[in-house]
Amino acid sequence: MIKIIVDAMGGDNAPAEIVKGAIDALPLRENFMVVLTGDESLIGRELAKYKYDASRVEIVHTSEVITNDDVPTLAVRRKRDSSLVVGLKMLKEREDVGGFVSAGSTGAVLTGGIMFVGRIKGVMRPALCPGIPNVRGTQTLLCDCGANAECKPQYLVQFGIMASAYAKAAYGVENPRVGLVTNGAEEHKGDPLHQEAHQLMKVCPAINFAGNIEGREIMYGDVDVAVTDGFSGNIALKAIEGCGKTVASVLSTEFRRSAGSKLSYLFAKKPINKLKNMLDYSKMGGSVFLGLKKVVVKSHGSSKAKSITPSVLQALDACRGNLIRDIEQRLESMPVSENEGE
Amino acid sequence: MIKIIVDAMGGDNAPAEIVKGAIDALPLRENFMVVLTGDESLIGRELAKYKYDASRVEIVHTSEVITNDDVPTLAVRRKRDSSLVVGLKMLKEREDVGGFVSAGSTGAVLTGGIMFVGRIKGVMRPALCPGIPNVRGTQTLLCDCGANAECKPQYLVQFGIMASAYAKAAYGVENPRVGLVTNGAEEHKGDPLHQEAHQLMKVCPAINFAGNIEGREIMYGDVDVAVTDGFSGNIALKAIEGCGKTVASVLSTEFRRSAGSKLSYLFAKKPINKLKNMLDYSKMGGSVFLGLKKVVVKSHGSSKAKSITPSVLQALDACRGNLIRDIEQRLESMPVSENEGE
Repeated sequence: MIKIIVDAMGGDNAPAEIVKGAIDALPLRENFMVVLTGDESLIGRELAKYKYDASRVEIVHTSEVITNDDVPTLAVRRKRDSSLVVGLKMLKEREDVGGFVSAGSTGAVLTGGIMFVGRIKGVMRPALCPGIPNVRGTQTLLCDCGANAECKPQYLVQFGIMASAYAKAAYGVENPRVGLVTNGAEEHKGDPLHQEAHQLMKVCPAINFAGNIEGREIMYGDVDVAVTDGFSGNIALKAIEGCGKTVASVLSTEFRRSAGSKLSYLFAKKPINKLKNMLDYSKMGGSVFLGLKKVVVKSHGSSKAKSITPSVLQALDACRGNLIRDIEQRLESMPVSENEGE
Repeated sequence: MIKIIVDAMGGDNAPAEIVKGAIDALPLRENFMVVLTGDESLIGRELAKYKYDASRVEIVHTSEVITNDDVPTLAVRRKRDSSLVVGLKMLKEREDVGGFVSAGSTGAVLTGGIMFVGRIKGVMRPALCPGIPNVRGTQTLLCDCGANAECKPQYLVQFGIMASAYAKAAYGVENPRVGLVTNGAEEHKGDPLHQEAHQLMKVCPAINFAGNIEGREIMYGDVDVAVTDGFSGNIALKAIEGCGKTVASVLSTEFRRSAGSKLSYLFAKKPINKLKNMLDYSKMGGSVFLGLKKVVVKSHGSSKAKSITPSVLQALDACRGNLIRDIEQRLESMPVSENEGE
């Protein structure tokens, strides 16, 4: 039976919400189990609150926790008995483990993932890849959204390849359309990094390239994958997040303010909740950390149970969709040498 | 009487909407007039449709038009009798003219502005600076949002200085708070460009520096000015624009879909319109092109009259707020040499 490890101690709401989110995933898919890494007694106390199939849950005791106050590169080296490091090592070593989920320090997950799980052969830089809701009701993958603040053109090509593989594994998209996010649709737009990336992507057989797209198109759903450098991708992701929160806040205020407000809110509740739901990142799972030899999902630091559950399913679906093998195969057709980006 | 030139031939809806927008601005402020550059007979035909104070409108006939199909750098050199070039030259030469508004080709406005109006002494790169609506109901200035895809650290410092001057001239903000948009709040975040800009901004006496901010904070209103390089700033601006459009579209769809839809929309109309209004860039005027010797406002290419009117007022308010003199004075206190950025 395939196993998904969940870092029970990572994130602002650990372990209570993490444990609940993990076991809530069990009834939603068959033939898999979760492995919780962390303080055995704390995890046990949380588990005791719920009814669940105990044969599908394993606990691996660890004595340390990596927090956001730790320096990631030091923490993953020194806290060898942390829920994060133990989880990542198990992920690497055990054949029956397919994926790993953590809501812990992003830096530590990235550093630890590269150090303990390792990159797929040929991958220059692993990248974070969340799904952004779009106007069509599906998700657009944004890659990289923050793992690499500094990029080379070849990295961006690989982000497009890896995210294409993920679009297929996770959503079943056969020939994902890939756009390059720049400051204008025309081919010559952008800085030299993006101009060069554009030329490489155009001739890359592993990418169904749709050309440059602008920031507004990320949410229009015309492409399945939006490729960005980790710097501007992070800004785009958070700008959209901030806009969503602003909209929700303005709607609440305005409904309280307007005449006949309570009545009107009663009538408008359903459509507005639908909108809030659509913009609610917490329900969408986490960002897949693409390019490692096993599936790693980084859930938001403030994740509650309802965000952990989809992250677990995300990791499971990516394993079952043969994400890793697909990335390997697609990379073989990439027309740049392995060492160019190093 | 102060004069604002309006490029009557620039934009998708020229000249009809541009002419209407320009004369609609007249009753809203005293002691100013508009100068319309463009085809005299076309402008006359539009003006004939409305009642307005003819003593406050001047027409300057031009025979050429620069379109989006023109290559900007060539067009501003060759089409010397275009509404854009004639307008910019008048702006430069005539003392009684304080500002210029165009909804024409962005590239041509930027190139022409630098070529014919010229940079303020010490300005390395002029920058586009639109106002973004925020959750507090005010606007956050985003600078640069697209004039400079490639930047040096000193440019970013100047963007902060120039936008601070504009926050004071346009909104009366006495000591504008300036944030640097990066991929994380911590001081060390970002690529070398933003890391170095952070250090320069921290010690710049002409900036009230609030440190790094993330993309989501652009709409939270805690800073008055959000400094970005033109590449990521453009992506952030458009990501927010796309999110706003997506929200409006989802709300419309959901209200049509939900049971008792028409009734519920009747009740919810007011708050939702308030939201749409807030997110409606067209009503906010254009982007000021900061760093030139006179005030230039670039209005959106798809501007209708309701976007041209606020752009005209924006140009007028910036003149009356002594924007140019204020930028000159603030730049004098900048601790980098004029030539470093060249």
